[in-house]
Amino acid sequence: MKIVRVTVTPIAFRDPPLLNASGIHEPFALRSIIEVESDTGYIGLGESYGDAPALAIQQRVQPQLIGLDPFNLNGLRAIVQATVAAHAPTSLPGAELAPGSHASKAVSNANSAFEVALLDLQAHALNVPLVDLLGGAIRERIPFSAYLFFKYAEHVDSPYAPDHWGEALNEQQIVAQARHMIDSYGFKSIKLKAGALDPEHEVACIKALKKAFPGVPLRIDPNGNWSLDTAIRMAELLGDDLQYYEDPTPGLDGMADLHKRTGLALATNMVVTDFDEFRRSVAQNSVQIVLADHHYWGGLRDTQVLARMCQTFGLGVSMHSNSHLGISLMAMAHVAASVPNLDYACDTHYPWQEPDEEVIKGGKVPIVDGCVQLTRAPGLGLELDHDQLGKLHDQYLSCGIRQRDDVKQMQRYQPDWKAVKPRY
Amino acid sequence: MKIVRVTVTPIAFRDPPLLNASGIHEPFALRSIIEVESDTGYIGLGESYGDAPALAIQQRVQPQLIGLDPFNLNGLRAIVQATVAAHAPTSLPGAELAPGSHASKAVSNANSAFEVALLDLQAHALNVPLVDLLGGAIRERIPFSAYLFFKYAEHVDSPYAPDHWGEALNEQQIVAQARHMIDSYGFKSIKLKAGALDPEHEVACIKALKKAFPGVPLRIDPNGNWSLDTAIRMAELLGDDLQYYEDPTPGLDGMADLHKRTGLALATNMVVTDFDEFRRSVAQNSVQIVLADHHYWGGLRDTQVLARMCQTFGLGVSMHSNSHLGISLMAMAHVAASVPNLDYACDTHYPWQEPDEEVIKGGKVPIVDGCVQLTRAPGLGLELDHDQLGKLHDQYLSCGIRQRDDVKQMQRYQPDWKAVKPRY
Repeated sequence: MKIVRVTVTPIAFRDPPLLNASGIHEPFALRSIIEVESDTGYIGLGESYGDAPALAIQQRVQPQLIGLDPFNLNGLRAIVQATVAAHAPTSLPGAELAPGSHASKAVSNANSAFEVALLDLQAHALNVPLVDLLGGAIRERIPFSAYLFFKYAEHVDSPYAPDHWGEALNEQQIVAQARHMIDSYGFKSIKLKAGALDPEHEVACIKALKKAFPGVPLRIDPNGNWSLDTAIRMAELLGDDLQYYEDPTPGLDGMADLHKRTGLALATNMVVTDFDEFRRSVAQNSVQIVLADHHYWGGLRDTQVLARMCQTFGLGVSMHSNSHLGISLMAMAHVAASVPNLDYACDTHYPWQEPDEEVIKGGKVPIVDGCVQLTRAPGLGLELDHDQLGKLHDQYLSCGIRQRDDVKQMQRYQPDWKAVKPRY
Repeated sequence: MKIVRVTVTPIAFRDPPLLNASGIHEPFALRSIIEVESDTGYIGLGESYGDAPALAIQQRVQPQLIGLDPFNLNGLRAIVQATVAAHAPTSLPGAELAPGSHASKAVSNANSAFEVALLDLQAHALNVPLVDLLGGAIRERIPFSAYLFFKYAEHVDSPYAPDHWGEALNEQQIVAQARHMIDSYGFKSIKLKAGALDPEHEVACIKALKKAFPGVPLRIDPNGNWSLDTAIRMAELLGDDLQYYEDPTPGLDGMADLHKRTGLALATNMVVTDFDEFRRSVAQNSVQIVLADHHYWGGLRDTQVLARMCQTFGLGVSMHSNSHLGISLMAMAHVAASVPNLDYACDTHYPWQEPDEEVIKGGKVPIVDGCVQLTRAPGLGLELDHDQLGKLHDQYLSCGIRQRDDVKQMQRYQPDWKAVKPRY
């Protein structure tokens, strides 16, 4: 089997005005959709970062895959490594929450983008679900959590009609957002994206969620925007309210200090984002739970390796998410199904994406009782909707955004807003 | 695809009187040969330990695999785990160089035995070489090293005609053994199994090899039979003669001390034999090179995980071997082909096995220029020779050995011989 066609299509879809430590989401989120076709007529799909630096590498890798055997994942990695080495990418500030723009992750990001498509292709050729190539499904229903955000009612300058979620800045609004999300999707745990507003206020929102949803596991994620002192002070206020404490304070050293001072289980998708950071974290016990993300860990197989390393070193495992569509969701679900030690419900931004902007046939993947259900359909179980792909590509062309920048976007609301971290 | 037939056939083949730290090889080595057949008519092969405790678990797992999808490697592991949990195996002393008898390795041993056969079956169904399922061959020629042993000319009580290798107890004989092995197979590096004779004498043999084969990388493996003081003293004598120093002294602590005292690169297949020992070794820098062995590390995929962990933690990787036939050799070759960071030529006992005792069609796998060459034949690229299998199974039935015991065998030569470690 040989690859005869590879397509990399950048797309843009509407994204609500969600607040975070770096600023606020822009009106459109970028992704790239990857199609890889074999000489036997099968098609494998992938979804990855659509930011300019990531896209540039994907587009350079793209023609080099023609003729490659889709099973040759080591060959893919060699091509990606050589491509990145020849075009040393650079990072932009303001894009730190978009790992697709991190120069240090260029190889693992691009490898993952195509690895998922190649695995999908392999599985189609075998007529088995992708998870079978990962050792088989340990679970067929993959739990996700409600992912709450502080948000404005609409974007600055109203680029399109406001979303139906409305404003969420205070306790009542956050509880209403959680209620709506849980009613719609049946999530059994809640994550609050924090680091955006005053820390005491964010903790008060956790308290309100605890009261409104007794017994539901809660998490808070300030994206490293709290100083060590603030993180310790908030830990005292939070007591045992949390299932885990996600990236409250920046750096491997800061997290190690925080754990030593509080004894709390710390989760991360910021200080352990590659295998070298894993090694350094182990050496100083910086984190207790790693939130994996196949998009920047190198792919589905590397995510399995990471999970095994976590098992070896006594760390918990769950999954991180950026804004994404259904291909990414199903790739996450397939690998999550294969990981024995998936200890917590995974994160996903998926509920924030609009139903008319899915690129897969049949529209959005259902999330029922908080879970994505795997089927026995071959590969990822997805088919691309080319009309939708064309529509979202046109939107990419017209939206004017080429690289995520939450800082600059926030300055459109508050011109004197500065990127300072930790802010609190 | 479903599994419809599983066969586990214990076999025995002639093994020369090779000396080691535990005593001496018995006249027959035990293995088990595994066949797994699918409802689509494909057959996957495996080779594993034939010692009684390992065999007992394999035979308990065997019937439970009927109906399993060969892709369901997670399902295989669950069956093996449940089986081992229900029949807590025990270890016998005197069998410490036969990891197939280690109770702590029962799950990983049995999992590996069947995982290789299932992967072979998957690859046959796909009509691709097994290595393609492991990400593709980074190299198609897998380097092995000459594996020298001190040995007697023949076994006590002459159970069969002496082998053609002759006695090897002094420098001249060891150099002659190396010459014969290199002339026959083209090996480019040399390992001397030590821990059997006086350490100074063993070091003198390394010096003789260095003189006879200038520039050829040399290794010595006393199997943990030297005290820390002896290992340090021998290190001083050896100077920079070695490519690496393999298991000179026992224990993670002993190896850590030795590395601290000498700065030498230490390799092991004795103190890092599972993921938990890996973790402990990392914490104290006990070893710098891990000699992987898919037979007790859980299989080919787990060996890949181990290699990635070694890469992450800055450790070198090569491969360990026990007495084995061609199925094990090819399984080693396929996984070695897929590991980017295979830093050294692998060990193999294969030259010590007689050409008339191979179980695969076509006889022994060729080793040319020190390498096993992969082909594009599907799976492991092997077919079972059922006549040979029957012959070696009959030999198993008649040989009387059911569990390797190098200590008891040595006591047949020297009745007052005691199992003491470290001996020197």
